[in-house]
Amino acid sequence: MTDDLVDRLRLLRTAGIGPVTYRQLIARFGTAAAALDAVPDLARRGGGKPPVLHSRADAEREIARVEKLGAKYLTIGQGLYPRLLAQLEDAPPLLIAKGKLTLLDQPAVAMVGARNASAAACRFARGLAHDLGRQGLVVVSGLARGIDSAAHDGALENGTIGVIAGGIDIFYPPENEARQTALFQQGLVLAEMPPGTEPRARHFPYRNRIIAGLATGTIVVEAAPRSGSLITARLAAEAGREVMAVPGSPLDPRAQGCNQLIRDGATLIQGAEDVLESVAPAQTRFASPVDRFEPATAQANSEDAVSIVEELLGPSPAPVDEIIRLSGASPGAVQMALLELDLAGRLDRHAGNKVSLRPA
Amino acid sequence: MTDDLVDRLRLLRTAGIGPVTYRQLIARFGTAAAALDAVPDLARRGGGKPPVLHSRADAEREIARVEKLGAKYLTIGQGLYPRLLAQLEDAPPLLIAKGKLTLLDQPAVAMVGARNASAAACRFARGLAHDLGRQGLVVVSGLARGIDSAAHDGALENGTIGVIAGGIDIFYPPENEARQTALFQQGLVLAEMPPGTEPRARHFPYRNRIIAGLATGTIVVEAAPRSGSLITARLAAEAGREVMAVPGSPLDPRAQGCNQLIRDGATLIQGAEDVLESVAPAQTRFASPVDRFEPATAQANSEDAVSIVEELLGPSPAPVDEIIRLSGASPGAVQMALLELDLAGRLDRHAGNKVSLRPA
Repeated sequence: MTDDLVDRLRLLRTAGIGPVTYRQLIARFGTAAAALDAVPDLARRGGGKPPVLHSRADAEREIARVEKLGAKYLTIGQGLYPRLLAQLEDAPPLLIAKGKLTLLDQPAVAMVGARNASAAACRFARGLAHDLGRQGLVVVSGLARGIDSAAHDGALENGTIGVIAGGIDIFYPPENEARQTALFQQGLVLAEMPPGTEPRARHFPYRNRIIAGLATGTIVVEAAPRSGSLITARLAAEAGREVMAVPGSPLDPRAQGCNQLIRDGATLIQGAEDVLESVAPAQTRFASPVDRFEPATAQANSEDAVSIVEELLGPSPAPVDEIIRLSGASPGAVQMALLELDLAGRLDRHAGNKVSLRPA
Repeated sequence: MTDDLVDRLRLLRTAGIGPVTYRQLIARFGTAAAALDAVPDLARRGGGKPPVLHSRADAEREIARVEKLGAKYLTIGQGLYPRLLAQLEDAPPLLIAKGKLTLLDQPAVAMVGARNASAAACRFARGLAHDLGRQGLVVVSGLARGIDSAAHDGALENGTIGVIAGGIDIFYPPENEARQTALFQQGLVLAEMPPGTEPRARHFPYRNRIIAGLATGTIVVEAAPRSGSLITARLAAEAGREVMAVPGSPLDPRAQGCNQLIRDGATLIQGAEDVLESVAPAQTRFASPVDRFEPATAQANSEDAVSIVEELLGPSPAPVDEIIRLSGASPGAVQMALLELDLAGRLDRHAGNKVSLRPA
């Protein structure tokens, strides 16, 4: 148990500090310890009460529990933390991992789809996952019913990663306990939430961004319109990854999501060969180490930045770039002002690097 | 019965004169009568025996037979001959039509697919054809078993055109006699071959070019790899028309042709709305009258052109453009030399405006 991990955990588990804020604090102050020291002052300058910091004792308790479960923390920008995932704007600063960590070092594709998929689609997913595994690709999925389970089963012998929405020690759905246990032993399971966390509906989109972020491309097998699988596909596209979909008859409602994805530009997949062809360029592109975690240039904070930025913000999300442009202040000063507002509980962050003022 | 029609028919039915040669002769000599007069001389200058011209009596007999069948000739560049079809390099110079000729004046889409299509795919094709008809689109197909029949049935009440490979009075397959008769009455049937012609395998690709050529886009519903439907799709693409395909499960072999088309860039179709969206730009683009039938600039024929062109030609197909460039002669002179070689039975014409010297 290192002091740095304790500090990182305290910072991350403090209410109101999400992955983006965490990342900016580390970028600004260099270490989690320095960030923790700075948070109260920053919040005051943002015009709010300082947040109650997550206690050292709670952090140490969590770390002990993770160790006892045979799991490990992965820290963004360090060690085996997956490079591709680190490229996400809102990459999880810490992940809890249990299983074969070396799987994180192999090229991966994600496979997701309907929980209530047809037997034929599950059979197809299992076969495809198996074939991809034989080609050296790790298959990432979400340990859900249906397509997810089929993907893990097909890929188990060659390498598969399950990303779960709850804690590493929670089996959800319960009937997947044997499967998750098999992944602990032969594959790898990743969790963003602390041990003991029961998954809630709001956790699943966060889980989905990790699935998409780990992979050079995401394959959707049978998905209804407006399903979680399509969210994963959208997140993959937003992260610049390949989006692939398995087509089906227009007469089959479960094929509509995939068919629509293909109409929108996803690559139609009929088998492993199509997947390999699709992700090959991405694998080359992502092979070079890209570290988006370098500290931003520290800039002097204009005394007026908070009030200028506050004036520019409203209840509707606005792009940070636009705020910077309109403010006339330096990007560093605006980012710092946003950080201060954020820590004061007065800012909401949205997808696509947008921010809004939280209604009082 | 006009003299011009008799002359056109004599020219077109003369062995060795295909649509491209026919078109060039008319472009060069203005009328079929003048072209008929010129053919013997041209063939001699090309170094071959003059072809035996189709007799006036035979042409008149055919015309009388067509009239008796209640059918009509459509002449390229004239009257109701469809403009879109006339844009094909090898558009049929004459078509025999029986039914509602006004259907030729409406925007059309083609729908083709497997003869042994699944019941589900036939049901889908029938429904789609019906929906397209209600949106004012005429549905063109080939009066074959399977998807073709379903497309005609679905579109019958709103407008459908059947293009057949044999003569207008031949029912093929025989069980489609009632369907073809229904099209005579409520739709339209088109044939390129003279009455009485039994369709042979080699006729079908010619028939397919007419289906593709009549339509702003071609929809393929269930097609095996390397099937005739894919030839129609390729002809549509070569003519600059939209190619659309209905997807299916990769587990269904009958969906492989369509899925591959989509991978190759065809638009995935789930219903009539998708078709309308796909062909809307093409309809605007093709709405302006384009007449590719204007006579080419008559150019003096260089005495040496035949021998120069002959030297440049070999047994492998070469683009006419290249022959023109390499010859140093004017395009008109080269075209005339090619025409002479053609009429002398010494030239083969290939897709993509390529030509080769026929092996002796």
